[in-house]
Amino acid sequence: MTEKPKPDAEQAMRDWWRTSIIEMKPGVIRYRGYPIEDMIGRVSFAQMIWLMTRGELPEPREAALLDAVLMSAVDHGPQAPSIAISRMATTCGVGLNNAMASAINVLGDVHGGAGEQAVELYHDVTKRIDAGSGEESAVDAALADFTAQHGKIIPGFGHRFHPIDPRAKPLLELVDRAAADGVVSGRFARIARLIEAALEKQKGRRIPMNIDGATAVIYAELGFPAPLARGLFCISRSVGILAHAWEQMQQGGRNKGPIPRQYIPTYDGPPQRPVPAA
Amino acid sequence: MTEKPKPDAEQAMRDWWRTSIIEMKPGVIRYRGYPIEDMIGRVSFAQMIWLMTRGELPEPREAALLDAVLMSAVDHGPQAPSIAISRMATTCGVGLNNAMASAINVLGDVHGGAGEQAVELYHDVTKRIDAGSGEESAVDAALADFTAQHGKIIPGFGHRFHPIDPRAKPLLELVDRAAADGVVSGRFARIARLIEAALEKQKGRRIPMNIDGATAVIYAELGFPAPLARGLFCISRSVGILAHAWEQMQQGGRNKGPIPRQYIPTYDGPPQRPVPAA
Amino acid sequence: MTEKPKPDAEQAMRDWWRTSIIEMKPGVIRYRGYPIEDMIGRVSFAQMIWLMTRGELPEPREAALLDAVLMSAVDHGPQAPSIAISRMATTCGVGLNNAMASAINVLGDVHGGAGEQAVELYHDVTKRIDAGSGEESAVDAALADFTAQHGKIIPGFGHRFHPIDPRAKPLLELVDRAAADGVVSGRFARIARLIEAALEKQKGRRIPMNIDGATAVIYAELGFPAPLARGLFCISRSVGILAHAWEQMQQGGRNKGPIPRQYIPTYDGPPQRPVPAA
Amino acid sequence: MTEKPKPDAEQAMRDWWRTSIIEMKPGVIRYRGYPIEDMIGRVSFAQMIWLMTRGELPEPREAALLDAVLMSAVDHGPQAPSIAISRMATTCGVGLNNAMASAINVLGDVHGGAGEQAVELYHDVTKRIDAGSGEESAVDAALADFTAQHGKIIPGFGHRFHPIDPRAKPLLELVDRAAADGVVSGRFARIARLIEAALEKQKGRRIPMNIDGATAVIYAELGFPAPLARGLFCISRSVGILAHAWEQMQQGGRNKGPIPRQYIPTYDGPPQRPVPAA
Repeated sequence: MTEKPKPDAEQAMRDWWRTSIIEMKPGVIRYRGYPIEDMIGRVSFAQMIWLMTRGELPEPREAALLDAVLMSAVDHGPQAPSIAISRMATTCGVGLNNAMASAINVLGDVHGGAGEQAVELYHDVTKRIDAGSGEESAVDAALADFTAQHGKIIPGFGHRFHPIDPRAKPLLELVDRAAADGVVSGRFARIARLIEAALEKQKGRRIPMNIDGATAVIYAELGFPAPLARGLFCISRSVGILAHAWEQMQQGGRNKGPIPRQYIPTYDGPPQRPVPAA
Repeated sequence: MTEKPKPDAEQAMRDWWRTSIIEMKPGVIRYRGYPIEDMIGRVSFAQMIWLMTRGELPEPREAALLDAVLMSAVDHGPQAPSIAISRMATTCGVGLNNAMASAINVLGDVHGGAGEQAVELYHDVTKRIDAGSGEESAVDAALADFTAQHGKIIPGFGHRFHPIDPRAKPLLELVDRAAADGVVSGRFARIARLIEAALEKQKGRRIPMNIDGATAVIYAELGFPAPLARGLFCISRSVGILAHAWEQMQQGGRNKGPIPRQYIPTYDGPPQRPVPAA
Repeated sequence: MTEKPKPDAEQAMRDWWRTSIIEMKPGVIRYRGYPIEDMIGRVSFAQMIWLMTRGELPEPREAALLDAVLMSAVDHGPQAPSIAISRMATTCGVGLNNAMASAINVLGDVHGGAGEQAVELYHDVTKRIDAGSGEESAVDAALADFTAQHGKIIPGFGHRFHPIDPRAKPLLELVDRAAADGVVSGRFARIARLIEAALEKQKGRRIPMNIDGATAVIYAELGFPAPLARGLFCISRSVGILAHAWEQMQQGGRNKGPIPRQYIPTYDGPPQRPVPAA
Repeated sequence: MTEKPKPDAEQAMRDWWRTSIIEMKPGVIRYRGYPIEDMIGRVSFAQMIWLMTRGELPEPREAALLDAVLMSAVDHGPQAPSIAISRMATTCGVGLNNAMASAINVLGDVHGGAGEQAVELYHDVTKRIDAGSGEESAVDAALADFTAQHGKIIPGFGHRFHPIDPRAKPLLELVDRAAADGVVSGRFARIARLIEAALEKQKGRRIPMNIDGATAVIYAELGFPAPLARGLFCISRSVGILAHAWEQMQQGGRNKGPIPRQYIPTYDGPPQRPVPAA
């Protein structure tokens, strides 16, 4: 057992937590090199979100698109598990941060992951086009691959509650305008619409783009990697999660269950029976 | 700026995470000094829980009481927010560990804290008795103090669903038997019954001891500090949380909300209105 | 057992989840009465956060202040437990949403609650002034009360790492400008400065306002109830939490512990000992 | 819009939360048909865990094996992210339940999933044997398949810290004894040893079975489906998580970061730069 070279222990500790996001010294905070005191009042929240996750500040019109997409997905009401969980948690004697955590935690592959998956799907289509495939056959091949791997639910298209998701059209219009202005390419809006058309042809009925499909278009247009589509959705939805926790706190209640207490869940297990002798 | 003394950096790092619970070296794991290879098959799960939280191994009959109390509180059905959250989370595309975490997280002051509060209440009574107060006046004073600080819900007594909680009596019987055998003193069982009697006198009707009141008796008899009553309840309830997550996983479902989708929550906010011009 | 009146069951279910935040029907989503399709591209993320938590849309200059305060608190580096947790969680095979949840969860009374407590402290001062007390004696009395109840750490003032928190001054300047423009009253900025002065007099050295004290001024000026200061901090900090999770994901690593693996934590428990015979 | 048939609303609500785990009525709690008052003091915690997750009570010797496996995995010290998170969370002003939740939450695919994956691997081998393959070629094929899909880290074998994991051997001995007594078949212990031998042959050095490989043998022998191996690990590890949270609570500290405050993380991003003009 030779002694470890002591001068390295401190460096090892520092490097274990190395980051290129934030530089800290007593009295100094810089994000990606920008001193915080120069940013406050000049850099918007949406720009900061971009800087933190991407490394550089966006153009103002890029930031406006990001701002819009964050705004559009804040809430889908108490039937969304995340929102119900936030409200129930609030009545259990935990802090708002805890209620938010229990709720954000369930924004998983099924509840919060559709945006991420849709970005991946769009990227798969562009990769095929870039490799020489025609647009429509690229879409068909990407959809076939996706279905083979993940089943028939295509992320970003169709909604079990809304025949037409009212959020998709205005989001797409923002992208179209941004593309006309040269802020984004418009490529992913086009691909998403081709997917919509291909699905209609396949199924014989419209499976319209939903919020996840539309926000994924914007995230892809703005160059966000797919996993960040999920991460940013978590930030967006945390607004609704907070608002409902707060409303529930004002309504009061203790240990609020999912349904009123007098409606006892159906039991379909074995009838009463004696514990066998040891 | 003088340089920090380098030789201390490694020690500082090690000491930052110092513990008297577990000793680790390559090939070596000892809990409180006991080598794990000597424990496996000889030390029970309940004994291990005791050792980890208390520092020493319990007597077998103490371990049996702890085992019984952990067994008694595993589940209270899908109307408990923790259980509903576990089931809903499971349908959102997260792992069992995540579903369990979102659920355990809500075992807060209101949902999971009654056992802890009941232990504190019992300790308050004993402190008053030890200071010379008579038993009944100690109980009355402790209840009056508690009510003044926390309101009229006395932790461990009364149940909003069960007129009589079927778990309290058999748990108390275990304590009585253990007290008769000299395993515990029986002091806290006596205090809990005095509280029950005092409450009946005050309210003019029975407010019978519930699961939290009875488990708190056992935790207090066994010498567990009050906060561990909550921590151990979390371990106990995590069994029901897991079982329901697993059952839900087999039932299937995606983004399971608290009520069937066709029953849209009542909206009682402002009617439709136009967004004001910017 | 008389049968429950059936026609009420559906209403009971709907009312159990009643809300004035969001109105949902197939194809319809309205927040506080505003149709989402009219909001997208016209209402900013900061305005939406305000609408969701407060019930009405803010003036643009109010929204700008809220935007600035959200921007200012996104991150404090990997030595903050929340940030370290986010990075460690990411290496454990969970989703970004789960890493964010574990991290947001710890923004409790000590880590994330200072803003909420500072708002409460400011409100306590204003209440005393409104009841006829002079400003300085109101501040002294509020501080004395706070210290008596919670100990000597005054939320919002002093920082264990920064001799002067570089975020406080520019935030206060924003408030001063907004007060000069009549957007806010400036009352809470004045109170916070009085507290700073009182602390200096008491302690004989400056305990300068920190980020929590400054953001609390803005939340109070904008009329946010104290608990929302914590909730909004969670949204703000979730940006840093996401950025660090994402950076860690790109750095890679599996089961990243708090310090490099070769630096084994100090063990200070009992030495090796045999398991006693059963 | 025809009105929904009212008599069904209550039933729909009850059925939405149907379960075969627990039957609840006022004054009545039955788990899988067994009245709780008959179970307390007669059914052990390990038996209860089995009943809740499997549907029927185990034989006492099966319960003893389950008890042993739960006991064996409670803790791996503060370098495990779950344990460090629990300790850090405790210093942030959240409850023990919240600290436990943040920690259990990270027992994901990498940190807590190896047992589940090992059970799946063993099942894959048995499926191949049952389909007529020889034992060794079944093992080789299963390993080749696993590596192709998931990479070269074989769950349950090898340990980055322990050259030999001291927990594996005593756990395997328990299985051998149980197999000799006819409690379990011993089939999965045999398969696990064949995997160990195959890995040694492949790599030219021993990759010894670790805790996850050994506990997976027991879970498989006892008939637990693979996902429950992860769920039960969460229950086991939550003991260590609680013990460390409690120890940290007694050590004190506020906002405990991963390393002492004076060791500032290395910053490797852009140097200081001015915020560009808007």
